[in-house]
Amino acid sequence: MAERVIKAALLGFGTVGGGVYKVLKMQQEEMVSKLGARVELKKILVRNIEKAAQKTDDPSLLTNNWKEIVDDPEIEIVIELIGGIEPARTYILEALEAGKNVVTANKDLIAADGHILLDTAAKNKKDFLHEAAVAGGIPIIRPIKQCLAGNHISEVMGIVNGTTNFILTKMSQNGMEFADALKLAQDLGYAESDPTADVEGLDAGRKVAILASAAFNSRVTFDDVYTEGITKITATDIEYANEMGCVIKLLGVARNTPEGIEARVHPMLIDVNHPLASVNDAYNAVFVQGDAVQDAMFYGRGAGELPTASAVVGDVFDIVRNILHDCCGRIGCTCYKNLPIKHMNEISSKFFIRMFVEDRPGVLANIASVFGNSGVSLAQVIQRRKKDQYAEIVVITDEVKEKNLKDALAVAKGMSTVKEISGMIRVA
Amino acid sequence: MAERVIKAALLGFGTVGGGVYKVLKMQQEEMVSKLGARVELKKILVRNIEKAAQKTDDPSLLTNNWKEIVDDPEIEIVIELIGGIEPARTYILEALEAGKNVVTANKDLIAADGHILLDTAAKNKKDFLHEAAVAGGIPIIRPIKQCLAGNHISEVMGIVNGTTNFILTKMSQNGMEFADALKLAQDLGYAESDPTADVEGLDAGRKVAILASAAFNSRVTFDDVYTEGITKITATDIEYANEMGCVIKLLGVARNTPEGIEARVHPMLIDVNHPLASVNDAYNAVFVQGDAVQDAMFYGRGAGELPTASAVVGDVFDIVRNILHDCCGRIGCTCYKNLPIKHMNEISSKFFIRMFVEDRPGVLANIASVFGNSGVSLAQVIQRRKKDQYAEIVVITDEVKEKNLKDALAVAKGMSTVKEISGMIRVA
Repeated sequence: MAERVIKAALLGFGTVGGGVYKVLKMQQEEMVSKLGARVELKKILVRNIEKAAQKTDDPSLLTNNWKEIVDDPEIEIVIELIGGIEPARTYILEALEAGKNVVTANKDLIAADGHILLDTAAKNKKDFLHEAAVAGGIPIIRPIKQCLAGNHISEVMGIVNGTTNFILTKMSQNGMEFADALKLAQDLGYAESDPTADVEGLDAGRKVAILASAAFNSRVTFDDVYTEGITKITATDIEYANEMGCVIKLLGVARNTPEGIEARVHPMLIDVNHPLASVNDAYNAVFVQGDAVQDAMFYGRGAGELPTASAVVGDVFDIVRNILHDCCGRIGCTCYKNLPIKHMNEISSKFFIRMFVEDRPGVLANIASVFGNSGVSLAQVIQRRKKDQYAEIVVITDEVKEKNLKDALAVAKGMSTVKEISGMIRVA
Repeated sequence: MAERVIKAALLGFGTVGGGVYKVLKMQQEEMVSKLGARVELKKILVRNIEKAAQKTDDPSLLTNNWKEIVDDPEIEIVIELIGGIEPARTYILEALEAGKNVVTANKDLIAADGHILLDTAAKNKKDFLHEAAVAGGIPIIRPIKQCLAGNHISEVMGIVNGTTNFILTKMSQNGMEFADALKLAQDLGYAESDPTADVEGLDAGRKVAILASAAFNSRVTFDDVYTEGITKITATDIEYANEMGCVIKLLGVARNTPEGIEARVHPMLIDVNHPLASVNDAYNAVFVQGDAVQDAMFYGRGAGELPTASAVVGDVFDIVRNILHDCCGRIGCTCYKNLPIKHMNEISSKFFIRMFVEDRPGVLANIASVFGNSGVSLAQVIQRRKKDQYAEIVVITDEVKEKNLKDALAVAKGMSTVKEISGMIRVA
C-alpha cells in the first residue's frame, strides 16, 4: 500500500517553530506506524528567507508568500506559530476558509477571538487545535475537553507563567528582591527584555481566559480576567508568608460559581502542603476540580522550544488521525453556555495585609475596629519588626468581599496612626 | 432536529458501576449540548436483580441475561465494570464482534490480554477504551496516546496504588508499623480484607504493564513486570530514609532502554524534593519523561466511585463523538513495536541496605571488600543504633546491576560478622 503523506505548512520559524521542525524530524520514522501516514512540511512561512535558511537542511521549503500556502490545495494542516494578533488572525481564518486544519500556540489571539476561530473551523468542518497555547507541553486542553468531559468543573487554578514562577522561586529560596530575581531571569533567558506581559500577569491572564472557556463551557476572554502582577511583592512579604506556613505564587484562578465566573490572576499565599506550593522554577501546574474527578493536577514545562513543540505536534498528529478517518471538526467549540462574569469587587478572599502603624497601646484595636466597620474580621495578627516609632504588623483577614476590603483599606490609610500599608496579597 | 440518543449498557453495578450511573445522571442535562447526543443506559447487567434494584430508580433496566445486551442492536456502547478475567473477557469480545464499542476499567484483563481486545476492536472498527484502568480519574492513557504522541517516551514512573501509598504515608507521618497502618487502611475502607493484590504490588504491576505498552508502543503484559510489595518495609527503614532526605514510596517504573523495556514495581527511596515525594495518602501520580515534553506529571485520585467513573464517562463521551462522526476505531492499538523485556537481574539501581553486624573494628572494611568483589561500591554509610554486641549500619550503594548486588548479599549473609540483613530497598 502506498504510504499516505499529509502535507503541512509552518507559519513562523522562531523558537517554537524550530522546535516543531525538530520534533517532526525526530518522529519521522515512527509516525507512519503510529498514525498510518507521514506528515511532511511542504512550506515554512518566514519574514527573512536568508536568515531562516540557516535553520533548515532544505531552504526550498522557505517562503515569504502566504499565498503559496493558502492557495496550495495539497497543504491540509497549517501550524501557526507567528504569535500576536495580526497577521496570525487573518492567516488562520483564511486557512480554515480554504479548508485547512489549523494548529496554533497563539494565546493572545485565542484569548481575544477564540470563538471566531472555532466557529470558522466548525463552519468549514475543520479542526482548530491549540493545546500549546496553555502551559506549553503540559496536556491540559484535551484532558479538560475529553478526559474530564463527564465533570462539571468548578475550579481551575494554577501556575501558568514560568517566568514569574522562576522569579518568585528565587525570591523565596534565595531571599532575593524582585528586581534582582527579574535581572537573573533575564540573564538566563527566562524573561524578555520587556518583561511586562509576564510580570504584570497578562500572559497568565490570557491562559486563564482559555482554560476557563474550556472548563466551564462558556466564553471567557482576556478582557474578562482581572490581572495583577508580582512587581509589588517583596522579600519581606515572602518571609512573613513562610513564617505562616505559606508560599507566594502567581496564580491563575477560574471558578464557576452560582453568581458567575471568576477569572483572575494575582499573587496568592498558599499552604506549603498544597500540591502547587512545591511547583518551582519555570515549571507550570494546573489544578482542576470537578464534581466527579474531584481533584486532578497537571504538571510540567510551561514553555520552551521542545516542550511547546510536543503539544503542537500532538495536535498535528490528532488532526492526521481525523483526516485519515474523515472526521475533522470532531470536537469543536465547547462553549455552549453564556455565563455571566463576576466582578472582582464581588469576589471573596482572605487577605494578607502588611502595614506600619504607630507603636503604642490601642492602635491595633483601632485598626481592628475600622476593619470591623467594613465587615472585615481579622483571623491572625503578627507583630514583629519595629522601625523608629512604628511597628510592622501583618494581619490575615477572614474571608471577605474585595469591595469591603477596599473600603476598610481606604479608611485605614487615612488614619493618623497608620504610616503605610505596604502589602496586600490574597490568601488561598 | 430530533435529539440523537445513543444507547449504552452497563455490565456490573458495584462501586464504579454505581458511580458511572450517577455521573451519567449528573451530565443528563449538559451532554446534549456538549456532545450533540444523549447517552441513555438501556440495560444494566447484574448477578442479583433484587439486590441491585435498591440502587436505581428504574429497576426495569436491570437484567441478569447477557444475551439481552449483546443481541440488542440498539446498544452501541458496552461499559464493562465487572472486573477480573471471566466472564468480562468473553463479554467484551462478544460485544466487539457484535459491533459495539467498549469501555472498561478492567486492569487485570488488559494487563493480560489487552492486545487481543484491541485487535478485536480494530477488526470490527470499534473503540476499546480503558482510561479508567490506570490511576482512576487521572487522565493518563489518552494524554500518552494523543497529547504526547510527538514524543519518544523514555520513562513512566509513578504511584499507581492508593492503598499502599496510604499505608506508607501513615508509616512515614505517624511512625506506624506496616501491620498497624494496614489495619487502619482496612478500617477506613482503603484496603480490602485480603490486601494481597495491593500490598504485594500486583495491582500496581498491572497498571505498569498497561502504561508501558501505551508509552513505548510495545506490548508489555503483567507477566513481564517484576513486582515486590511493601510488606517488608519497617518504620525503621522509613526513619533512615527520612534522615537521608528521602521518602519511601511504592513506585511503578517503566523504562525504555536500548537493552529492552524495564517494567517493575517495588518500594523506592526518592528525594523529598522529587514531585512524587509529596504525593500522599490515597493519591496517585504518574511522571512521564519524553524527548520533547521533557517531564510531565499527572496527579489525582487513583480510585473511588466518582473519580473512576469520571474516567469511564470521559471514554463513553469520546465514543459518542466518534459515533456521531462515524470514526469509531479512530485510535486503536498503538503497540507497533516488539521490544524485548529486560530481565530484572540486568537492571541497575542504587540500593539502600540495612544490616546488623558485629560491633568491632574492621568489620565494615570487610563488608565493603565483599561488596567490592562483586563490583558493588558504597556511596554512603550510616552507623547509629546498637543492640547487644551488634551495630546497625545502613549503606547506600552506587548504581549497580541487581545480579551483582544479589551476589554480594549472598556472600555477606554468610559472613560470621553479619548477623542480619534486615532491609534492601532500591534508591531512585
